[in-house]
Amino acid sequence: MIKIAIIGFGNLGQHLVKTLSNNSSVQLVQVYLRDPKKAPYFLPKNLIVSDFKDLVEVDLTIISVNDNSIEEVSSQIPFNNNLVVHTSGSISIDKLNSKNRKGVFYPLQTFSKSKEVNFEEIPICIEAENSEDYKILKTVADSISKSVHIINSEQRKALHVAAVFVCNFVNHLYQIGDEICTENNIPFAILKPLIQETAQKIKTLSPKDAQTGPAKRGDNQTIESHLDFLTNKNHTKIYKLLTQSILENVQKL
Amino acid sequence: MIKIAIIGFGNLGQHLVKTLSNNSSVQLVQVYLRDPKKAPYFLPKNLIVSDFKDLVEVDLTIISVNDNSIEEVSSQIPFNNNLVVHTSGSISIDKLNSKNRKGVFYPLQTFSKSKEVNFEEIPICIEAENSEDYKILKTVADSISKSVHIINSEQRKALHVAAVFVCNFVNHLYQIGDEICTENNIPFAILKPLIQETAQKIKTLSPKDAQTGPAKRGDNQTIESHLDFLTNKNHTKIYKLLTQSILENVQKL
Repeated sequence: MIKIAIIGFGNLGQHLVKTLSNNSSVQLVQVYLRDPKKAPYFLPKNLIVSDFKDLVEVDLTIISVNDNSIEEVSSQIPFNNNLVVHTSGSISIDKLNSKNRKGVFYPLQTFSKSKEVNFEEIPICIEAENSEDYKILKTVADSISKSVHIINSEQRKALHVAAVFVCNFVNHLYQIGDEICTENNIPFAILKPLIQETAQKIKTLSPKDAQTGPAKRGDNQTIESHLDFLTNKNHTKIYKLLTQSILENVQKL
Repeated sequence: MIKIAIIGFGNLGQHLVKTLSNNSSVQLVQVYLRDPKKAPYFLPKNLIVSDFKDLVEVDLTIISVNDNSIEEVSSQIPFNNNLVVHTSGSISIDKLNSKNRKGVFYPLQTFSKSKEVNFEEIPICIEAENSEDYKILKTVADSISKSVHIINSEQRKALHVAAVFVCNFVNHLYQIGDEICTENNIPFAILKPLIQETAQKIKTLSPKDAQTGPAKRGDNQTIESHLDFLTNKNHTKIYKLLTQSILENVQKL
């Protein structure tokens, strides 16, 4: 059984702790929380550590802290030549302190504390320095997900940037939709089936083939009337830029 | 039984014809196609007309043509004082020729010819000039959808603008994600579970609460490294503007 320690208890850390606690192929041995008072009821007290010095050697130490702290945290680990990975989409494997064997275990998903996720469907991107370490990461990843990919640091960075577009930015556009509805006394719920269908469509169509709307049709009259309608300057700027980008795309076809 | 004619056979027109053909509460009497050679095999030949003069009086005539043609098409209708509606999100009811009773029948969804849709889940926004006409529109809308809303022209415009943000612009961001993956030899499929989850999340969370990512966290280091990574000028402009918009949002909280 692969012994695991997790450092960090943010959105992803909490989901990892939950899924790895209920997993028969691994054993969760330690969870590092800076403030042990914040530990939830379901986390057995004997797993919790809050001093780096108390971390013990395991088969796999997963650092799941914010990107800016990975380098520092990896240097605080009190042992050498163990497999230590981070979970970040945007940080190179080289940022990890080289006193330990380095790796990456990046689940490509958006995590909110209050929303359950099904790890089975989440692609996990792994990176390691040698085949033995790949084997450990692959065993752990396979035990929680059906979709495991070997992705190097440069590709992972591309993937992370792409994820910002299709997740973070997309969600921000949902929020603008919500704001426009609220300003006009329309329940945002009317838009939810459209949002779901827009996401569903690209299961079977390429985004290019799925594109619809006034910019795709070159319908300048509608575009003008939308711009007349918008009063929020920020909404207007975003409308203009994305419309322009779609128009240019159509012209390239 | 309510007798219906449909003018136009674009994305929406085709889906309306399909769903109304298989509907026991209405009778589809005529379908106007400019070019009858483009009629698909499933459309009975006796329904097809391609000259406005051949249109007959029915209980409800649905004009489903592109926005710029609605006014002109409604003026070509060869009868008076019938209920004639359009299906557009962005056109006011007043654009319809006033020789007939005016209304709107706007299904808020994205339609692609090659993708089946389930009308039951699609919100239909209706508008009419009197209660009798509302009754006709509500009967037809209720017969195909579980979600029927009375929405006036001003609100419908807001809804249409919001729909451009949460559907057309969102799909364009999917396309940018696809482009970034392709440039870096990563299968776009790795992003698909993230795309689905991002849409699923707002079924239970408000977009504000669902927001994640470097801009939400104020993680300037990651933002800078993403901007260094992007080489496409258009992608860079969009990244900057949407990041700025999220940052400003966070500051407002």
